[in-house]
Amino acid sequence: MKVGRVVGTVVSTINAPVFDGRRLLVCDLLDASGRPEGGYLICVDTVGAGAGEAVLIVDEGNSARQVVGMDPAPIRAIVVGIVDEMRVDGEAVVREG
Amino acid sequence: MKVGRVVGTVVSTINAPVFDGRRLLVCDLLDASGRPEGGYLICVDTVGAGAGEAVLIVDEGNSARQVVGMDPAPIRAIVVGIVDEMRVDGEAVVREG
Amino acid sequence: MKVGRVVGTVVSTINAPVFDGRRLLVCDLLDASGRPEGGYLICVDTVGAGAGEAVLIVDEGNSARQVVGMDPAPIRAIVVGIVDEMRVDGEAVVREG
Amino acid sequence: MKVGRVVGTVVSTINAPVFDGRRLLVCDLLDASGRPEGGYLICVDTVGAGAGEAVLIVDEGNSARQVVGMDPAPIRAIVVGIVDEMRVDGEAVVREG
Amino acid sequence: MKVGRVVGTVVSTINAPVFDGRRLLVCDLLDASGRPEGGYLICVDTVGAGAGEAVLIVDEGNSARQVVGMDPAPIRAIVVGIVDEMRVDGEAVVREG
Repeated sequence: MKVGRVVGTVVSTINAPVFDGRRLLVCDLLDASGRPEGGYLICVDTVGAGAGEAVLIVDEGNSARQVVGMDPAPIRAIVVGIVDEMRVDGEAVVREG
Repeated sequence: MKVGRVVGTVVSTINAPVFDGRRLLVCDLLDASGRPEGGYLICVDTVGAGAGEAVLIVDEGNSARQVVGMDPAPIRAIVVGIVDEMRVDGEAVVREG
Repeated sequence: MKVGRVVGTVVSTINAPVFDGRRLLVCDLLDASGRPEGGYLICVDTVGAGAGEAVLIVDEGNSARQVVGMDPAPIRAIVVGIVDEMRVDGEAVVREG
Repeated sequence: MKVGRVVGTVVSTINAPVFDGRRLLVCDLLDASGRPEGGYLICVDTVGAGAGEAVLIVDEGNSARQVVGMDPAPIRAIVVGIVDEMRVDGEAVVREG
Repeated sequence: MKVGRVVGTVVSTINAPVFDGRRLLVCDLLDASGRPEGGYLICVDTVGAGAGEAVLIVDEGNSARQVVGMDPAPIRAIVVGIVDEMRVDGEAVVREG
């Protein structure tokens, strides 16, 4: 899994029920110091994550289908949780709230 | 998932029914600012995406087989939607139409 | 999926029936301009691809097992087709024959 | 599989039973000389790994679900063991205890 | 699949039967000229590969579980064969024995 930060959204007309009423988030991937590492993933939101929030991402199809409770579904990356704190080498590199 | 842009096509003689009558698109992968990041994927088109259009790509075999409704099928990356807008840090980095 | 070019072969003694009588191809991965991007994959040939030919590669275990018609089988990357033409930005970056 | 080193933890509110009572570890990935290679993974701990310990990581959904004994579960990377020693070219590049 | 070279071993206490009595090999990944490309994988040995030998690696969970004949099992990368020869552009870039 990876830690990311919500930086945007994607609006797309998709002919697959799994996307109905679900937001697609642009999530910058963070490195172990809590800074953007340069990559991103488009993730389906399952927790109501807002802009700027740090999130835990699982990028695997079966995990994603299980979380949304729909199989089959063409989906791979999802946000499974808001990150309250990420500590590395004793320092809080990510801390929310 | 990733956002890409259709930049070309591949014509290939493939002995697998899943490819009959389906176009193979060359999709540049876009970074979070909407510009090509350097990589690409060959994706099966399922939405009638045209040259220059921004698209949402799912790169996972089970997702791809579910969208085309054929299993087994040797297929991994598909275009699942046209991207109408991708907003990052409050700015529309991709906007169609 | 990716487009590659056959540049060599691997001879290996493997104790798995799926490899009996099948060639292992060294395939350079091509970028969107049709040039080697630096990486490669060892792919099981399923179409009789020859040295120098451009090919379509699917790198996913379930796809590979379906094409060879053998499951279980320890196999992941396969050549599924010869690429006749790859067009990018209106130009033929790969054209065979 | 990869060898990593535990450098931190992530605290996240996740609405999925598989994460209840399990720690999420920030694991730097190590290169073949035992030094951090720059990347990391957030892994579910299954062995009680402590800060600074070298660990063996399996980054695959089915493996992860099998180790935690819960399926379905949105989980991909897990720590499956403490690394006692990693020897490369006759030298112990990682040695614990 | 990829070609690698055995450069070391990992000793790890793992509470999963699939690892009992099996060696974990540190395998440098080789590029298409037969030289280390910088990455490596920890692979379960299934062929008795020795230090310095070139090997064929399959990095996929289902393949790995099939080769070891144990499912479920938390395992992803395996050595499936010793590479006798890897020829690229008419030259033997790897040749054993």
